[in-house]
Amino acid sequence: MTSTNASAQQIAEDYARAWMGGDVEKALGFIAEDVVCDAPAGRIEGLPAYRRFLEGFLPKLTGSSITKILGDDTSAAVVYTTDTTFARDFRAMDYLTLEDGRITYVLTVFDRLPVAQAARPAAG
Amino acid sequence: MTSTNASAQQIAEDYARAWMGGDVEKALGFIAEDVVCDAPAGRIEGLPAYRRFLEGFLPKLTGSSITKILGDDTSAAVVYTTDTTFARDFRAMDYLTLEDGRITYVLTVFDRLPVAQAARPAAG
Repeated sequence: MTSTNASAQQIAEDYARAWMGGDVEKALGFIAEDVVCDAPAGRIEGLPAYRRFLEGFLPKLTGSSITKILGDDTSAAVVYTTDTTFARDFRAMDYLTLEDGRITYVLTVFDRLPVAQAARPAAG
Repeated sequence: MTSTNASAQQIAEDYARAWMGGDVEKALGFIAEDVVCDAPAGRIEGLPAYRRFLEGFLPKLTGSSITKILGDDTSAAVVYTTDTTFARDFRAMDYLTLEDGRITYVLTVFDRLPVAQAARPAAG
């Protein structure tokens, strides 16, 4: 059991800084075993699947910046931009809910259209 | 000059409920003349352009639900889903910053890919 007095906002920030810094193990330390993540491409369930999601994305990350983190006792929103191998200044927001100091739910919202356009040669 | 003691979180909620209810005039009453909005398709500047943006979107809205609103003194995040004529359970987040009780900056994040796919006949 994790016992912590850290706020959802602080945990969200520590989590975001960890994955933005490429530290997968530290980032996953904030994630619950039974995490559910709703990403644009679909739902990801459980820590092993979330690990694969994070490990798949991080090699594409070339830079990142936190715009704002807002939170209350049990949830937080992380507003951020990333630079990736396929898009620069890529805006995204995560909404996180927490239980017992761990992140149990992640809603990630970003625009997949630039990614799809970068992957597809210009179609007439 | 607007003088208000309402929190950014409350103003964000009142604004979101107004546009979700289709009340453009009430929604625009929370927006500053010199508003800047970063939307997936690009930047929108000024209240007249923001009015056109909202008036263009609202006829496509068939339903909506607020998941969560988080805020501090000067900013708020609105996590929500909409049902539209082109996609159901369409997840989005807005990050708003406020000055003197008015919304001066709106960052809207959502995934345009379902929209693009709905607009384009299945390409082989």
